Amino acid sequence: MPTYNPPLRDMQFVMHEVLNVVDELKEIPRHADVDTDTLNAVIEEGGKFASQVLQPLNLSGDTEGCVLDKTTHEVKTPTGFKDAYAQYVEGGWAALSCDPEYGGQGLPIVANQCVYEMLNSANQAWTMYPGLSHGAYEALHAHGTPEQKKKYLPKLTSGEWTGSMCLTEPHCGTDLGLLRSKAEPVGDGTYKITGNKIFISAGEHDMASNILHLVLARLPDAPKGSKGISLFLVPKFHVNDDESLGERNPVFCTGLEHKMGIHGNSTAQLSLEGAVGTLVGEPNKGLQAMFVMMNAARLGVGNQSLGLTEVAYQNALIYAKDRLQMRSLSGPKAKDQPADPIIVHPDVRKMLLTAKAYAEGGRAMSIYCAMLLDKALYHPDEKVRKDSDELVALLTPIVKAFLTDNGFAATNHAMQVFGGHGYIHETGMEQYVRDARINMIYEGTNTVQSLDLLGRKILGNQGATLKKFGKLIAALVQEEGVNEKMSEFINPLGYLADQMTKFTTEIGFKGFINPDEVGGASVDYLRVAGHLVFGYFFARMASVALKKQAEGSTDPFYTAKLQTARFYFARLFPETASLMRTARSGVANLLETDEALA
Amino acid sequence: MPTYNPPLRDMQFVMHEVLNVVDELKEIPRHADVDTDTLNAVIEEGGKFASQVLQPLNLSGDTEGCVLDKTTHEVKTPTGFKDAYAQYVEGGWAALSCDPEYGGQGLPIVANQCVYEMLNSANQAWTMYPGLSHGAYEALHAHGTPEQKKKYLPKLTSGEWTGSMCLTEPHCGTDLGLLRSKAEPVGDGTYKITGNKIFISAGEHDMASNILHLVLARLPDAPKGSKGISLFLVPKFHVNDDESLGERNPVFCTGLEHKMGIHGNSTAQLSLEGAVGTLVGEPNKGLQAMFVMMNAARLGVGNQSLGLTEVAYQNALIYAKDRLQMRSLSGPKAKDQPADPIIVHPDVRKMLLTAKAYAEGGRAMSIYCAMLLDKALYHPDEKVRKDSDELVALLTPIVKAFLTDNGFAATNHAMQVFGGHGYIHETGMEQYVRDARINMIYEGTNTVQSLDLLGRKILGNQGATLKKFGKLIAALVQEEGVNEKMSEFINPLGYLADQMTKFTTEIGFKGFINPDEVGGASVDYLRVAGHLVFGYFFARMASVALKKQAEGSTDPFYTAKLQTARFYFARLFPETASLMRTARSGVANLLETDEALA
Repeated sequence: MPTYNPPLRDMQFVMHEVLNVVDELKEIPRHADVDTDTLNAVIEEGGKFASQVLQPLNLSGDTEGCVLDKTTHEVKTPTGFKDAYAQYVEGGWAALSCDPEYGGQGLPIVANQCVYEMLNSANQAWTMYPGLSHGAYEALHAHGTPEQKKKYLPKLTSGEWTGSMCLTEPHCGTDLGLLRSKAEPVGDGTYKITGNKIFISAGEHDMASNILHLVLARLPDAPKGSKGISLFLVPKFHVNDDESLGERNPVFCTGLEHKMGIHGNSTAQLSLEGAVGTLVGEPNKGLQAMFVMMNAARLGVGNQSLGLTEVAYQNALIYAKDRLQMRSLSGPKAKDQPADPIIVHPDVRKMLLTAKAYAEGGRAMSIYCAMLLDKALYHPDEKVRKDSDELVALLTPIVKAFLTDNGFAATNHAMQVFGGHGYIHETGMEQYVRDARINMIYEGTNTVQSLDLLGRKILGNQGATLKKFGKLIAALVQEEGVNEKMSEFINPLGYLADQMTKFTTEIGFKGFINPDEVGGASVDYLRVAGHLVFGYFFARMASVALKKQAEGSTDPFYTAKLQTARFYFARLFPETASLMRTARSGVANLLETDEALA
Repeated sequence: MPTYNPPLRDMQFVMHEVLNVVDELKEIPRHADVDTDTLNAVIEEGGKFASQVLQPLNLSGDTEGCVLDKTTHEVKTPTGFKDAYAQYVEGGWAALSCDPEYGGQGLPIVANQCVYEMLNSANQAWTMYPGLSHGAYEALHAHGTPEQKKKYLPKLTSGEWTGSMCLTEPHCGTDLGLLRSKAEPVGDGTYKITGNKIFISAGEHDMASNILHLVLARLPDAPKGSKGISLFLVPKFHVNDDESLGERNPVFCTGLEHKMGIHGNSTAQLSLEGAVGTLVGEPNKGLQAMFVMMNAARLGVGNQSLGLTEVAYQNALIYAKDRLQMRSLSGPKAKDQPADPIIVHPDVRKMLLTAKAYAEGGRAMSIYCAMLLDKALYHPDEKVRKDSDELVALLTPIVKAFLTDNGFAATNHAMQVFGGHGYIHETGMEQYVRDARINMIYEGTNTVQSLDLLGRKILGNQGATLKKFGKLIAALVQEEGVNEKMSEFINPLGYLADQMTKFTTEIGFKGFINPDEVGGASVDYLRVAGHLVFGYFFARMASVALKKQAEGSTDPFYTAKLQTARFYFARLFPETASLMRTARSGVANLLETDEALA
């Protein structure tokens, strides 16, 4: 069975040495008191919960799965899940970064980001239950009426109740404009909702006493398409004025999906049979309200793959040092053993370092995004709020798609290090691959993310936000340009940043003439953008490590960081050369293929 | 549930229009009578068997899996597997390319290659049972004593009995030199074999009345390491002189692995408890004897992924035309529908075309290799036999690794086209991904293949065999160099062929100084070599298609082939640019990482 060791040192490095989050948070009144010790204590305790409580349930949860009782419509989660959730609520983890007005601890999102990475490493399927709840919390917090907030937010904050996102229907996922669920006004301000939803993660379970479903449906006479969709709050059990639970609402789980992975999470088919709900946000503007939840969820999905990347890497590393097989090509290394540990082989190291670099780059980028979210929400300067919001909007599709593509590659590499043993369920490595696979699909496929990035976030404002990020890179290049030790990192980064401007303009121009050109380039473009961001953070991390060494530090952590950055620029970053070439090849080689795809 | 339509037209195109196999076979006396109609009839019937008998058992076989009765040590295969196997034997499929001396039909390996591709498309897990048997047939045919051949080959040929390859032990897979199973001479020419084997595909099942295990073990006083391993034939049931089955031999299945995929195949843990066997080949030269089987198996594994690539592509194509979701970026295409079919989206096409190009390139390469095997075995000219043997030895690790890496990418793309529905078991798409994953591991991991290619097959003879393949490319470039319509295919191919020589020399030189440099470059090198081979075959196929069109053909098949070739060169082939860059980055960025991998 896999093990898990929370990467506290690397999180602390990113927070305190690279991003200086405590200083940044000091500018935000509600986080001004957050200090290094507090953040370190939170992640240390979070790491204990993840590794001691959740990790032991991951493999068994996969084996056991969820079970639906078709007569009661109740779902039993795998053994131990319910108890672990009770401990989670008891420990106050659900409330960590929630609003104190509703009982939250009010800690910055940066803290939550690190804790969630560890929960995901330990058990992605389990973590989806509180993860979806937190998304529901955010949507209600942003768009709920004062009555809804008062009635529901405290229990979502504490975690006593959970939430779900009910978007998908059998005939529509990406294209929510097609959805058919109906909401009929009852006349008392409530609505009766009827329809069938599928793929509802954490849609039914036995871990909390109530579930608050956020449901997309159409009002009578709503405009067609995506402009006629409204958002409703549909509780599993109605809530009485004294906060006790009332009648069961007819929103029933009618089936659970048999999936490739995340078996421990119940993926429910829900039948709404005149279930009573209340409107969240304005009529016909449900998608806007839901987008709050979806943006958070997209960063959350990237974080799931970051977690899997880290834990898969850790276990592959242990195995590579332990497994004796063949000799090094340059002569025996473990002469007293019958064979060398497989970590002597260059390609085994390449697979390990790929996973490690993806984890470390992803961690830096994700914590950076969390810090931007903290600023976007509560920084006193409006311009900082706006800039932060725009930057995180730009980075969100990259986090979602780049980190999940990387996570799939990384978990596959980690599994490959195990050879045939990686294919066996009991080692736990193939589960990481199966679990990681969904992250490339849900909350908007990675193709959809690439169109969001290139079409909306970049070309949609003539590259203005991209230029903001470009300025950060330019500043770093200028600062470090004369530092010879940094040249191996700064040169390729600066070169790609220069190319990126031209590359973007080119595609923008082609897309202006033929919009399909954007769709023909976007997936490759997103990966190039991902490397630009990773390159920026690896250069910053390398710069910090070099400074520490110059100051006399002999901590092997900094040597390790430099080795990983060097590997990253030499072995992963050059992928951009081919990606730019294929992205530039034009859409005709995809669209003029009717006979080939006949 | 997925469907499957045998790609007969494309197989016929490769065999008859590109490779002219009938003409090539005319030079081989035992195949001189094989004509186009015979080959077409064989693959047509094979396709029917695959699509009608095996395909319907694929998803159910995955769901049901194999069950071991721990008291009897007998394994029950999924419902329908045994009946399908009886039909397979009855239809004479097992005997297709076997030696007529032992009851075989004596058809060329080219025919078997096409049939096996289709069997693999329909049901990889099932196909492994006859596949392993055929490997055992080949090893016995090459290395068995006359008595062994007489006693066992007829039943292996007919398929009444099956075979297995018993190599792996818990502590050794790649490094067979470490194996511990022991063989004690009894004194009557037989041996008592004791040991534990794991990961034995088709190692125990209910589909045949007897199983012939080919077992690697050590004789007393055998030299240490890989030079002290001998090969033994250990039947599940002893065979009496009258060919009836005798006593049960103590080779027992003690467990079945729980695997990521290929659930329909029984992956057995075998305990040999003084099981009686006979020596195959010479003492201590078991690895050489087993290599016959392993080389065939490596081509067979590439063929498994080719099969999965094709069937996954077919189903994704159907879905992409059927699923309505969003509008084309360049305006609605299906105006009478609520949304466009997703095939209008450039990236969906890219995913489909990637799978299609990998299937078609893989098919051409695999049939070519089969033809080389036919020549290597029975061509009357010794030089042709030798050249063919060397060329297929060069191509074998490429087929194994390149086709299985491609197959994993292709099945993942096909699954991605299904969006969330691809993650659901019942659509069958995620099974293709899980099944395809093992192909990158077993019969020598893809890293091992890359070392075999670069270290042994290329640098081992100073690039002599590679030069032979290079001559084929040079001839094509010369022939087509003046044909303007071919320039989009020939130019990049010729350019890569030129670079390849320099690239190989460089690595060879670095490897001479530090052997680890070979291990640091080999995986990227193999993918470049794979594209060189695919590029060659796509150029040849494009050349044929252009000629047919010049002759007046309006068959959309040729238009399709040109579109696929164009896509291949524009979108997949350019990967070589990055691969050469990373391969050239040197092994230091992998090996000087002790702190990073601490």
